[in-house]
Amino acid sequence: MLVALCGGVGAARMLSGLVRVKAPEDITAIVNVGDDTVLHGLHISPDLDTVTYTLAGMDNRETGWGVVGESWTVMEELARLGGEDWFRLGDRDLATHLFRTGRLRGGEPLSAVTAELSRRRGIAVRLLPVTDDPLRTRVTLAEASPLGPAGTEVGFQDYFVRLRHDVAVSGIRFEGAAAARPSAGVLESLELADAIVVCPSNPVVSIGPVLAVPGVRDALVARRERVVAVSPIIAGAALKGPADRLLTELGAEASVVGVARLYAPWAGTLVVDTADAGRAGEVEAEGVRCIVAPTVMSSPERAADLARVVVDAAV
Amino acid sequence: MLVALCGGVGAARMLSGLVRVKAPEDITAIVNVGDDTVLHGLHISPDLDTVTYTLAGMDNRETGWGVVGESWTVMEELARLGGEDWFRLGDRDLATHLFRTGRLRGGEPLSAVTAELSRRRGIAVRLLPVTDDPLRTRVTLAEASPLGPAGTEVGFQDYFVRLRHDVAVSGIRFEGAAAARPSAGVLESLELADAIVVCPSNPVVSIGPVLAVPGVRDALVARRERVVAVSPIIAGAALKGPADRLLTELGAEASVVGVARLYAPWAGTLVVDTADAGRAGEVEAEGVRCIVAPTVMSSPERAADLARVVVDAAV
Repeated sequence: MLVALCGGVGAARMLSGLVRVKAPEDITAIVNVGDDTVLHGLHISPDLDTVTYTLAGMDNRETGWGVVGESWTVMEELARLGGEDWFRLGDRDLATHLFRTGRLRGGEPLSAVTAELSRRRGIAVRLLPVTDDPLRTRVTLAEASPLGPAGTEVGFQDYFVRLRHDVAVSGIRFEGAAAARPSAGVLESLELADAIVVCPSNPVVSIGPVLAVPGVRDALVARRERVVAVSPIIAGAALKGPADRLLTELGAEASVVGVARLYAPWAGTLVVDTADAGRAGEVEAEGVRCIVAPTVMSSPERAADLARVVVDAAV
Repeated sequence: MLVALCGGVGAARMLSGLVRVKAPEDITAIVNVGDDTVLHGLHISPDLDTVTYTLAGMDNRETGWGVVGESWTVMEELARLGGEDWFRLGDRDLATHLFRTGRLRGGEPLSAVTAELSRRRGIAVRLLPVTDDPLRTRVTLAEASPLGPAGTEVGFQDYFVRLRHDVAVSGIRFEGAAAARPSAGVLESLELADAIVVCPSNPVVSIGPVLAVPGVRDALVARRERVVAVSPIIAGAALKGPADRLLTELGAEASVVGVARLYAPWAGTLVVDTADAGRAGEVEAEGVRCIVAPTVMSSPERAADLARVVVDAAV
């Protein structure tokens, strides 16, 4: 049994590789929900959806989010009405949000709705939101923005999408984390896993919220030798998104060494890209075994190659 | 200044006639919200939308609801997911619901959102939801249905759309009515109106909830001589919908005489269709002046003809 800790697009690609080397039904994906937001009254779970759409083969590989071949009738009409359209919701994507929101309002937990949605999409991987409780990543901005002066705290999607993460950050907190309980299966699967893969997701705002749910970090510490992380930082930069900037802004180092230092308490192994081969010694000096391999998942085949490396490293 | 009390399609057609004989900016439409419902987390106001789409010239005249030339991408995808799709929401229509729900959740009252939506649609008629407070028509079913045994109380849309009003009713109540306050402008416009038109809407479930808001009925009583109602019952039957059945099931008479009897306390005049010319005397015996005219609004021109009759009757 294999468990993957997941954010959005990097995790989705890692999973698309893992399902090529392990039976999908033996894989549990524990997914970040700190990015979740309510827009137009609809509950949106961006990371769960990115993972779902990718595993269902309906992801848009160009954008890294949303559904391929999507139409935009609702958004275009909403724009015509002067509604908020900075968070683009495609027509097919909206069906997911309507389904989810209706079920949540009917009293079902997010994990049950997620299981139903992934079943409907024909996905055999078990997808678990890390928690069914409200957990929201909040971002304190270090500089003035259209959303307020320096020091303003905003929701994650305000930072990430609305401001295009083009603003310095001075703090991150995970609202609700202290009271959040891991959803059913999260701690059990971590305890029983042969391998725990930390996908190449943003360490701060994707893996961070997962670890902030009480019990998860301890479960990882207990299985440290089975935990294999893939660095989302390659040659000092994030492939996509603001991971490099966030690490620097929050006092860490935007490098494989910085990632090793962050993950060392609970990850036994870090897979770094060949571009970082020269820093393997520094990674190991942090007490983390270092494996060098190509980590850019530009195709499902390359994702599968990386998945093989990761699985072999753990077991 | 002219005020119209409105339900859905019958009212929308009456308004499309009234705007042809009076300046639209001199018309205030007070609209039923008892049909409002929340589906998939979205706040849906069917009567406000029918009136809005009709006045904006984007109504679907074939169905009597929704937007002409509508697409159904979201609904089709929702059906594929196994979501609830008995209440059909078109793509463009959904933009309205997203806009409304987002604004309501942001703390705006329904009347402000309605004003903004109608401004965006280029509508000069002032549209007022009768109340900004929650007011929900609840229907007690007299017989067993897929929603439960005889005696089950359901929401209005469950009765109207889900069960296609194909089930007998033993009771109607307007949840929230006692605590509902008329929205800003409702009582003032009734007080100042030269004419108050009661559109040919369902007396029980369209006009009923409007009158159930404290203050509205008294305002009508005070202006009784200026109140001109158009009978939605023609030759004992409703042109559309279950008004005839509901009247009978709730102990009234499904005829122009039954309507006259219901409206007599607060309406001075009833316009009945030429098909009911023979019953004018019975209507007048109820204490209501009776005007006979063609009331089937099969085209905007016929609606304008009826509007002329109605306006002349009041002033």
